[in-house]
Amino acid sequence: MSTAVRGNTEVLSGKELASRIQQHARDEARILHSEGLRITLAVVVATEDESTHWYVRSIERAAERAGIACRIVDLGPDASEQALAGVLEDLSAEPTVHGIILQTPLPAAVRADRLVGLIVPGKDIDGANPLSLGRLAVGQPAFAPATAQAVVELLDHFQVPIAGRNVAVVGRSAVVGKPLALLLLERDATVTICHSKSGPLERYTRPADVVVVAAGRTGLLKGSHLSPETVVIDVGTNVLPDGSLVGDVDEASVTGVAAGLSPVPGGVGSVTTALLLLHTAEAARQQSHAALLTASTSRI
Amino acid sequence: MSTAVRGNTEVLSGKELASRIQQHARDEARILHSEGLRITLAVVVATEDESTHWYVRSIERAAERAGIACRIVDLGPDASEQALAGVLEDLSAEPTVHGIILQTPLPAAVRADRLVGLIVPGKDIDGANPLSLGRLAVGQPAFAPATAQAVVELLDHFQVPIAGRNVAVVGRSAVVGKPLALLLLERDATVTICHSKSGPLERYTRPADVVVVAAGRTGLLKGSHLSPETVVIDVGTNVLPDGSLVGDVDEASVTGVAAGLSPVPGGVGSVTTALLLLHTAEAARQQSHAALLTASTSRI
Repeated sequence: MSTAVRGNTEVLSGKELASRIQQHARDEARILHSEGLRITLAVVVATEDESTHWYVRSIERAAERAGIACRIVDLGPDASEQALAGVLEDLSAEPTVHGIILQTPLPAAVRADRLVGLIVPGKDIDGANPLSLGRLAVGQPAFAPATAQAVVELLDHFQVPIAGRNVAVVGRSAVVGKPLALLLLERDATVTICHSKSGPLERYTRPADVVVVAAGRTGLLKGSHLSPETVVIDVGTNVLPDGSLVGDVDEASVTGVAAGLSPVPGGVGSVTTALLLLHTAEAARQQSHAALLTASTSRI
Repeated sequence: MSTAVRGNTEVLSGKELASRIQQHARDEARILHSEGLRITLAVVVATEDESTHWYVRSIERAAERAGIACRIVDLGPDASEQALAGVLEDLSAEPTVHGIILQTPLPAAVRADRLVGLIVPGKDIDGANPLSLGRLAVGQPAFAPATAQAVVELLDHFQVPIAGRNVAVVGRSAVVGKPLALLLLERDATVTICHSKSGPLERYTRPADVVVVAAGRTGLLKGSHLSPETVVIDVGTNVLPDGSLVGDVDEASVTGVAAGLSPVPGGVGSVTTALLLLHTAEAARQQSHAALLTASTSRI
């Protein structure tokens, strides 16, 4: 892999890894296409938020490059919970759809946590259904939330050891912090989950070998929170008033202190998108195998 | 609450708390009985292991004292996965059964992790179904594994603060370590999950305010692993060759160092049993409400 270094801090870019995963997804799509199957990802949207639409279009473009069809189901910002539930149930049952994403934000009156339970686990390629999270926790096959998995893949890509290491995860969300803790435990890391009520962050981040920040607070992690050998993965996505995207890391103070930093943008983001496509390809393969099995059983 | 102290270390007995929770379950059972409902807990067993049968009988006796019927379904040590699956599906569908426990150990050929997924979440009073764990992780209503919840209840009972505190959980099992971490995070603790690959334990247990040991290794936690102000909860259950039960804590060396110690036996065990009964009563109430709702809806 190629790396850049800024003032002793290696820049852990997601570019090369994302392109490798994207290539993997494309290969899978080509094979399945030769077997007569067109992989399809459905993205359900119900917002007018511009940055969300920008993000969904970026998934669409990446899918196109990988030879995966992307079906955007836009119900508009006034969609009811019932309408969204109906769409998710239909897509879950629809054999030509292999992966489903319910894109946030959703209308204020809608309970997202109830809706994600309607995504059938085999198509839940962003690990949003609580059942997927529970299966991860007990070591059963399930798709992990792509962002959480992107962190682990990035650490592996840059050969940052995980087993036996002390990893501090800052943020306890169900989409990043908690599933990431489960994935890291599975890889034999010792994991500390910190959050807004943890008090001084350095108590947990200074002894850590790896710090992952996913709190959604601009400038949260500073160089003074870190020991010199620490590797930092920034998972924050904060949109500034001028529309630019920044992470949770105060890059100016962390650069020169941390041994490595995965920046925002340019870090886990593109890896996450590539993993969504790879998961969709894996889901398609599993569903096509299951269908073949059913067909051959019914012939007996 | 009454407490005993041994060489500066407060003994955090589960006795008083267990009896209070047991009383609560009994009150619930009495009220539901006056409404014509007899609360029933089903325990599915498939082993000849004597200590398991002893434990199941202790649940049965506790249930009896609380006015809860206990139905032991013993399929014997040669039970097939199919037979166990059939029983769990039947009990899940049976309206006169309100709570279900699948007791381990199970026959070697049986995949327990697949079977627990058959316990309908509303009757999963020991939080064994991965869906229950996933729901806990995302903050949806679910029964927590009783042992994990017993730890939190015991800390509350002895007024040990949780929010903002540093809690080290030793053990990453799906039945104790992981669900306990979720419950503690929900209560605003900072949680470190350590395990057999964590290296020297004191790195994580010395800075901790509370240490919970659930690793299943006799004598694992010693006084030298601790700082003086630490509260220790022992969740280990190890049966010695002479048949006696001991925890994971080396009590001799921890006593006098820790500020408090919940011992084995006499700590979380009886609280766990009491919580299983309370969960069964809560499950019965939820099911009876749901049935009333269905009945009144069908009358409209």
